[in-house]
Amino acid sequence: SSSPSTKKTPKKDVSFSNRGKTLEDELNEANDYYLAHKLAVIHKKPVPLQIVKVEYPSRSAAVVREAYFRTPSTTDYNGVWQSRYIDFEAKETENKTSFPLKNIHPHQVAHMQAVADQGGTTFFIVRFSKLNRYFLMPLPVLQDAWQSMHNGGRKSIPLATFEQHCYEMTLGYYPRLDYLKAVEHFYTS
Amino acid sequence: SSSPSTKKTPKKDVSFSNRGKTLEDELNEANDYYLAHKLAVIHKKPVPLQIVKVEYPSRSAAVVREAYFRTPSTTDYNGVWQSRYIDFEAKETENKTSFPLKNIHPHQVAHMQAVADQGGTTFFIVRFSKLNRYFLMPLPVLQDAWQSMHNGGRKSIPLATFEQHCYEMTLGYYPRLDYLKAVEHFYTS
Ligand SMILES: [Mg+2]
Ligand SMILES: [Mg+2]
Repeated sequence: SSSPSTKKTPKKDVSFSNRGKTLEDELNEANDYYLAHKLAVIHKKPVPLQIVKVEYPSRSAAVVREAYFRTPSTTDYNGVWQSRYIDFEAKETENKTSFPLKNIHPHQVAHMQAVADQGGTTFFIVRFSKLNRYFLMPLPVLQDAWQSMHNGGRKSIPLATFEQHCYEMTLGYYPRLDYLKAVEHFYTS
Repeated sequence: SSSPSTKKTPKKDVSFSNRGKTLEDELNEANDYYLAHKLAVIHKKPVPLQIVKVEYPSRSAAVVREAYFRTPSTTDYNGVWQSRYIDFEAKETENKTSFPLKNIHPHQVAHMQAVADQGGTTFFIVRFSKLNRYFLMPLPVLQDAWQSMHNGGRKSIPLATFEQHCYEMTLGYYPRLDYLKAVEHFYTS
């Protein structure tokens, strides 16, 4: 087999334009804003890793030398907003006509159902990157599509379903993606 | 400087006795129980790592080859229980007479205050391992001691303070550390 390739993790985009910003960048910006303005305390969880080997060089920081990415068993983001437990998964697609279901893990859907059963507020934030459109997708919409896929139906959710059954978010100035406005509209009105 | 030492992460203790179980093991056991019985959805967050180098060997899983431990900016555990946002930090000490404050990060205290301000339920679970005693410590008790330390006072919280101002948890059979019983008693009665 060929030798392994190595790659440095990409530097964060620090420009103010949306170009090159990932959905994660936009959500982190919103979460920083919410925290600074005491509006909510919501964080992205660290990437789950299985750590196998750690080196402890004398007089310097411990270095992880072997670790593997684990399948996440929960969602990317959680926290608290106005006494509510908030728990969501963020996904972006390059697709222009539908959202493919293949990147959603069954564990995550089960986790979100458990959260909903416990009285938490849980949803997806989906970005159609090529269209520059953002939707809040409630869990039941995903579950319908998921169930249908398992019954032999289509493996993606058409854009029309988002337009009809999800809440489209408009971008603002700062934070650009004020997603809690959508949560407020959708869950409290 | 000397060459780095390497070490494999320890295997999990799978015996039913408490010997060798860390507080983290006990909390994970309780959280697994709560999840299975639909009582709560609370998870430990992954350890935050700064990933610097990843190898992508052909035909096998990506391997992290260089990563560093980051100072946690939040707490270890969070989730939802009966519509409440739960957020806590777990600490154990070998000390028999007091709990040293040196292992609590200022960032964590600030995070917990923000959570409390937002209507979340936040606290510490402290194990005195040599005494086999467990306490739920509400945030204000820690903050008093923290403030006092910064005013030149003692750098630890005496056991007597736990006995007087915290809630002592008794161990049960399964889960051994039913900490939500303490949360229920302390915050809802
Ligand atoms: Mg994600
Ligand atoms: Mg801890």
